Amino acid sequence: MLNPDITLVREYFLRLQSSICNQLEGEDSTLFISQDINVDNGGFSRPSVLENGQYLEKAAVHFSHSIGTELPKAASERNPDLAGKGFEAAAISMIVHPQNPYVPTFHANLRFFLVDGAHWHFGGGFDLTPYYPFAEDVLHWHQTAAAACSPFGNTLYDRLKTWCDEYFYLPHREEPRGVGGIFFDDWTGDSFDDAFAFVQSVGNHIVPAYMPILKRRKNLKFGEREVTFMLYRRGRYAEFNLAIDRGTKYGMQSGRRIESVLASMPPRANWKYDWSPEPESAESLLYEEYLRPRDWIRELT
Amino acid sequence: MLNPDITLVREYFLRLQSSICNQLEGEDSTLFISQDINVDNGGFSRPSVLENGQYLEKAAVHFSHSIGTELPKAASERNPDLAGKGFEAAAISMIVHPQNPYVPTFHANLRFFLVDGAHWHFGGGFDLTPYYPFAEDVLHWHQTAAAACSPFGNTLYDRLKTWCDEYFYLPHREEPRGVGGIFFDDWTGDSFDDAFAFVQSVGNHIVPAYMPILKRRKNLKFGEREVTFMLYRRGRYAEFNLAIDRGTKYGMQSGRRIESVLASMPPRANWKYDWSPEPESAESLLYEEYLRPRDWIRELT
Repeated sequence: MLNPDITLVREYFLRLQSSICNQLEGEDSTLFISQDINVDNGGFSRPSVLENGQYLEKAAVHFSHSIGTELPKAASERNPDLAGKGFEAAAISMIVHPQNPYVPTFHANLRFFLVDGAHWHFGGGFDLTPYYPFAEDVLHWHQTAAAACSPFGNTLYDRLKTWCDEYFYLPHREEPRGVGGIFFDDWTGDSFDDAFAFVQSVGNHIVPAYMPILKRRKNLKFGEREVTFMLYRRGRYAEFNLAIDRGTKYGMQSGRRIESVLASMPPRANWKYDWSPEPESAESLLYEEYLRPRDWIRELT
Repeated sequence: MLNPDITLVREYFLRLQSSICNQLEGEDSTLFISQDINVDNGGFSRPSVLENGQYLEKAAVHFSHSIGTELPKAASERNPDLAGKGFEAAAISMIVHPQNPYVPTFHANLRFFLVDGAHWHFGGGFDLTPYYPFAEDVLHWHQTAAAACSPFGNTLYDRLKTWCDEYFYLPHREEPRGVGGIFFDDWTGDSFDDAFAFVQSVGNHIVPAYMPILKRRKNLKFGEREVTFMLYRRGRYAEFNLAIDRGTKYGMQSGRRIESVLASMPPRANWKYDWSPEPESAESLLYEEYLRPRDWIRELT
């Protein structure tokens, strides 16, 4: 039985960051640019960004270890007793915005909070946002998510899949952000060992969930029409990140390094007034078949 | 002495909308597309949008008259007694995103709230967001704003100019949105007549403030570099609208027609990680000389 130890979590997140960056670099033949930023109070962050790659228009994989003397209210809403206490947080978050509209955008995040040296929890998950989806890819994504969860309980994937559908939702559009994945917060499992093992299982399934899709679709031919639609849909991504996402809001309000907080933003995003896809077009298929919560594994197998 | 009368305000806003659309159409040789939307409860809106014009990449000039049985909390924060009361609101709001980076983006808004048939106020203003500013344009903009205010008090422009600087500010960037203008809220003046006369003065100065700048700059030669910078700066505009602006937040949360609420979004916006302009470049001039609150009229004349 381990005591909650942020050093262990930090080491795992840094190894994971390095591994994911290396594998994305291998796929794209473009290198990440990485910075090590030390903060006076012992905090440390390593933002890593790849821009204008052959296949990845932008990939951001960030690690941060922040140390604070007063837990912000935004991070203690569900446990007001902890507001104002000293805290540490370690987090890894990543996003890939592809060049090819047949490759989905993907996002993943893992985080650990330790407040007052004793109260702790994990949070995180990963979700997929396709433009021109393939059923085979969505199935693979969710099957890999289910595989990450299955050692930790029979119903775990279903719970976290529903949680993800609820979180990545644009109420002003009445529209899901994408086809979801898994999401969890305030996670303590049965113990620190158990919760940390689960978080590592999720972390270790990120590359297996995304890389096969990237490999399969990155060389598909596309034209201006597909790019136009991708950029339009990226407008929704910008709306979610800036207006809805709690993590981004917290980052913007807490005075964290803004370029790290907003590294998730799409490199390009378009808005077109009152647009909707032609009926029975490839674009309308996204809305009709994919932008609604579905039981992907049971329906697609 | 007039009683507060939303019909008068509505008529003025609709005339102003029509006049502004006509003048922008004349300048661009492209037509607005307008819809009349009647709501069952007597509400009415007329969104008008011009896209892909010769000079205007996007212009949106919207009128709305909304009627509600319960004032939302977001609209009654400063006067909690009014929450839940019946209300009417008339508003005109507009934005122009130019094709030419030497033409600034401009935004204006006027609104009237009537709650419980008795409590009322006006709000509004206009602000300018240049990419490659000309001192002459910024001076003209602020002089026109001052002219709109001067019949209503010697210190009015200064107060509303400061209010505007405070409102159109991105705290997460520690950066003003642009070079400001005037902003006011909860405005009752000395009486309804007085406040409505002031609002009409502001409304009637919108075209005189912007059109000369559009005319002067719309045919200046520009290249890829200037467009790249404009699209990068438009990312800030998207950040402000989605993450900061109270009006957009209210619109997104209150279930209003989302395409009208987000018609203000730039047609294209880019984000580039950790970018800043070369020292002493044309782009750095914007940051150094224009993106800080200044007493434009006194400094530039």
